[in-house]
Amino acid sequence: MIKSIIPKDIPIGELHSLLLGAVSPRPIAFASTIDTEGNVNLSPFSFFNVFSANPPIMIFSPARRVRGNTTKHTLENAMATKEVVINIVNYAMVQQMSLASAEYGLGINEFTKAGFTEVPSETVEPPRVGESPVSFECKVNDIVHLGTEGGAGNLIICEVTKIHLDTDILDKNGKIEPDKIDTVARMGGNWYSRASGDSIFEIPKPISSIGIGFDTIPSSIRNSKVLTGNELGQLGTMEEIPSPIKDDVNVNEIIISGNNVEERLHQLAKGLLAKNKISEAWAVLMANK
Amino acid sequence: MIKSIIPKDIPIGELHSLLLGAVSPRPIAFASTIDTEGNVNLSPFSFFNVFSANPPIMIFSPARRVRGNTTKHTLENAMATKEVVINIVNYAMVQQMSLASAEYGLGINEFTKAGFTEVPSETVEPPRVGESPVSFECKVNDIVHLGTEGGAGNLIICEVTKIHLDTDILDKNGKIEPDKIDTVARMGGNWYSRASGDSIFEIPKPISSIGIGFDTIPSSIRNSKVLTGNELGQLGTMEEIPSPIKDDVNVNEIIISGNNVEERLHQLAKGLLAKNKISEAWAVLMANK
Repeated sequence: MIKSIIPKDIPIGELHSLLLGAVSPRPIAFASTIDTEGNVNLSPFSFFNVFSANPPIMIFSPARRVRGNTTKHTLENAMATKEVVINIVNYAMVQQMSLASAEYGLGINEFTKAGFTEVPSETVEPPRVGESPVSFECKVNDIVHLGTEGGAGNLIICEVTKIHLDTDILDKNGKIEPDKIDTVARMGGNWYSRASGDSIFEIPKPISSIGIGFDTIPSSIRNSKVLTGNELGQLGTMEEIPSPIKDDVNVNEIIISGNNVEERLHQLAKGLLAKNKISEAWAVLMANK
Repeated sequence: MIKSIIPKDIPIGELHSLLLGAVSPRPIAFASTIDTEGNVNLSPFSFFNVFSANPPIMIFSPARRVRGNTTKHTLENAMATKEVVINIVNYAMVQQMSLASAEYGLGINEFTKAGFTEVPSETVEPPRVGESPVSFECKVNDIVHLGTEGGAGNLIICEVTKIHLDTDILDKNGKIEPDKIDTVARMGGNWYSRASGDSIFEIPKPISSIGIGFDTIPSSIRNSKVLTGNELGQLGTMEEIPSPIKDDVNVNEIIISGNNVEERLHQLAKGLLAKNKISEAWAVLMANK
């Protein structure tokens, strides 16, 4: 059943909870800032992402608190000094990161309270987190206040001036490997997700080729009771429908006669798609055409 | 080993890959737009997040392509009509979503090519995706072009005007349940992550209480060879260090004498922390103080 909601018709707390439950998982900016007296602050924000590579722009938003309509020290510091270090959070440091999110008083250094190592930055004053797998030193280009009431975001638009990364997270080609960086992200409520191991999977990018699409898949296949939307989606990425191959080795494993031939072929194709063998799956599906 | 990089010293393609590998997992905006002639477009973007609840603001960025410096139809449509529907992507639809990301020509409707159902919106013209667990109808408040070269982002700043959600994703208290919404997110390369099942975990928010912090944990515990940073982080959330309890039932399971008493107590505490029994873990750790 579909429930439709006009945002202004529900309390801000409820809307906030709904937005955070739906737009998830969200990457975490563990932001290090300093005030004009040099006091260091460290706090995590999940209203965060990268938005541009050229120039390299990241945005995070320390929102006004729904309860009390107060702002965070990070926002005040970013407004005052226009510098921030955005540190990436991996699974090994997530409990300490959560500890740093407590409302410690002004002037309390969360590096100390949460047990992180302050490493001096090179292009900005705030230190980076020594335990983070990647840190981005940033200049603040602009701050956009989205409202004045509790729950209002404040966009801190940052340009990356220097990147530090732990070479242990790189694969042999110098790319960041998901299992090695082992990032965590924020979801609704008290939930986090860990993006590694069995939770990650690959889908080849359909950039160089234009697939035939869902609509070109023969209706007997498209309306299959065996194949899911994901499996049909895989079939749709082929650039053309392969010709029927009667003597395919896979097809010969089953006899194309008797009852439920189509269902048996679809089951065989399903197994091939699970191994990402898309053209083989097509050959099977077209065997009795 | 730490590798430090100045962004302008490396090729844009390499920087782009690095930013996407590090800032991850990223939520996906599956954006539906129309052009001035009413042609529908549907395309996924992972430079996306929610940034404010009051007003409800989301931002996504169709960046200029690194290769060729061209822009996407979504950007052109958003500039022309100032409307978009942001649909959330769950695991069941991820292959079809990937199919929709292929570079189909102008005027080709990706709903059709990727096999999604167009459902009319109520406050904007572009349709929503019937298969999505949550859809956000949005007016575009502003578009900010971050640059003119390949890789430059374009911030589409959207205000939510209506929300549609499938009530099947809600728990009994009306909150979105991670396992039910079953969202997927984008990582570097061709990687995606699925945020449900074993990959998700809870950390109670330290909002109402201020933990003693890492620095107040006795050094014999803080320097433990048994306890990890995550486990020390959990210990740091207690508001005060519990008094030593010599006759604790857990501690009596092991004899506080003989060799490696401290290590055995730390192992026992480790097991309790894995069950989030923080005060019990403290009681064990303080047993031989």
